[in-house]
Amino acid sequence: MNDSVTIAIDAMGGDIGAEVVVHAVKLTMDRQPRLKVILVGDETVVKAEMAKHDLHIGERLSLHHCTEVVQMDDPPSVALRSKKDSSMRVAINLVKEQQAEAAVSAGNTGALMAISRFVLKTLPNIDRPALCTTLPARHGHTHMLDLGANLDCTAEHLMQFAVMGSTLAEAVDNVKSPRVGLLNIGAEEIKGNDQVKHAAKLIAASNVNYIGFVEGNEIYAEHVDVVVCDGFVGNVALKTSEGLASMIGYYLRDTFKSSWYGKLAGLLALPIIKTFINRIDWRRYNGASLLGLKGIVVKSHGSADASAYSHAIEVAMIEVAKNVPNMIEQHLQPLLRSEATQ
Amino acid sequence: MNDSVTIAIDAMGGDIGAEVVVHAVKLTMDRQPRLKVILVGDETVVKAEMAKHDLHIGERLSLHHCTEVVQMDDPPSVALRSKKDSSMRVAINLVKEQQAEAAVSAGNTGALMAISRFVLKTLPNIDRPALCTTLPARHGHTHMLDLGANLDCTAEHLMQFAVMGSTLAEAVDNVKSPRVGLLNIGAEEIKGNDQVKHAAKLIAASNVNYIGFVEGNEIYAEHVDVVVCDGFVGNVALKTSEGLASMIGYYLRDTFKSSWYGKLAGLLALPIIKTFINRIDWRRYNGASLLGLKGIVVKSHGSADASAYSHAIEVAMIEVAKNVPNMIEQHLQPLLRSEATQ
Repeated sequence: MNDSVTIAIDAMGGDIGAEVVVHAVKLTMDRQPRLKVILVGDETVVKAEMAKHDLHIGERLSLHHCTEVVQMDDPPSVALRSKKDSSMRVAINLVKEQQAEAAVSAGNTGALMAISRFVLKTLPNIDRPALCTTLPARHGHTHMLDLGANLDCTAEHLMQFAVMGSTLAEAVDNVKSPRVGLLNIGAEEIKGNDQVKHAAKLIAASNVNYIGFVEGNEIYAEHVDVVVCDGFVGNVALKTSEGLASMIGYYLRDTFKSSWYGKLAGLLALPIIKTFINRIDWRRYNGASLLGLKGIVVKSHGSADASAYSHAIEVAMIEVAKNVPNMIEQHLQPLLRSEATQ
Repeated sequence: MNDSVTIAIDAMGGDIGAEVVVHAVKLTMDRQPRLKVILVGDETVVKAEMAKHDLHIGERLSLHHCTEVVQMDDPPSVALRSKKDSSMRVAINLVKEQQAEAAVSAGNTGALMAISRFVLKTLPNIDRPALCTTLPARHGHTHMLDLGANLDCTAEHLMQFAVMGSTLAEAVDNVKSPRVGLLNIGAEEIKGNDQVKHAAKLIAASNVNYIGFVEGNEIYAEHVDVVVCDGFVGNVALKTSEGLASMIGYYLRDTFKSSWYGKLAGLLALPIIKTFINRIDWRRYNGASLLGLKGIVVKSHGSADASAYSHAIEVAMIEVAKNVPNMIEQHLQPLLRSEATQ
């Protein structure tokens, strides 16, 4: 029982609601015997969903009733100040109070960041938490941050993201000196705006393994481990990728369906095509970490299905097992000391 | 002969050089009997490439010698002021002098914009040209601008891009009131930075058919015809898409190769897979238009191959046939008048 992991899960947030979240909890508990869950949300709603999946309160599952929900269009300030009994807030409080080791929510990103920052506080020398996810690369994966938590970033923020991303990659992937690139628009251009040019100098002066500017296509290549960008650009890159992957899946099915020969070949190739579609399924990468906090908070995609949400819960479990905030703090100190002595 | 189209082609610019460009000219001239080409570049270099493809000076092909080349890392100001006999500059001069109806170049985007703007001038009420390309959507395509010509855009620039993109879509696709969306990071966020919020008001107040904010994934959907964004974000979205499409193609081949059953199914499905790979080949979409100029300039990808470069030449031919700058000017007047009277 010592190696159990307790996760507080916001059962109400997001476009998806308790139906998807509780289904995901069922899937994940079946697969992960070490997982304990505290479902946070309206008791009546959550219990109705639990009943559908034959889930019962017990040693591995508890329910924490609360009365409010952060809506997707609530400004972060409203969510923070006026909804102190929201499922999102209470889930994060449980982390603060050490009743849970991590919180997962599919709710409003702005509110999740504001509440996490207020309740858990940021690590020393970190101004703002950043959202970081893994994306597939040819032979492995890439970490990208920020994905939308911070829209207007200064060069200093981008430098902090570089340090956090580098540390996460080192911790989670067991890679020494992960290669960090700064997202820019390529050598044939005027080489980026002032923010990016300044950030490049700051990151180069830190002791992360900075490999220079990378372009959008390099996110999916294999020569960079961490891609740093501001939250507006990162969010567009991420969602553009989701849209393209989805369209390509549609094209593939459509091409096989468009002739009798294609239909026959498609029938024979079906198991292979399923493996392929599974490889490009963005749901396998669902679960973005809010890095830079004194605690673990994982954001699920707002329109995740149960399978995708389940992956976000597993991301939180890995971060608990690795104690990522502690590793980030330890890795931050020498990096920032070195940067300060330049 | 009256319906011939004369295109001035920068044979030297880009990472690709005369080898690819001359090969592309050969391919396109074979396919397009109406095409006349003026190759602009170093006579010795270009003639050597022409010889490889059995191309000769004649009624459909001429060669305009020049002595300089804009390098990929030349600052636009240097390209503009110090290289007055560059292949890029001379190609655009030929458009200005009405010896050619359009210019195509794979060179340095910043220099291409600076020179085009200086030589050809912008249309009335347009501050800056924008780079616009078509991207595939589920059942058709989407026009996206700006793709990297303008890194720091004001809300007013984004509004001008909306008007230009709407007009291009209307002209090229014969669509009435194309649906224009402004790229943003989705409803669950704080809804964008100040620039985007302000631009949304300006575009809504113009009489383009503004459908509101769109997210990255919607570029590849089918409910928007024109996606407007600043050049930094647009360039990242475009290159991210190229990288992902390339990785997915790799995954597909790899998945079929990874078992004996896959190899067999792959052999049978080969013609279908080739059709599919062709559908997601970004080279089919090569050729971005510099919109807002008193003349037609098309930018090829800097690392295009001959097939991709050939597509860029055909984009220029279509714009000549439609007289796109004239249509944009005509469409701009009522739109901007209406906007001014708000």
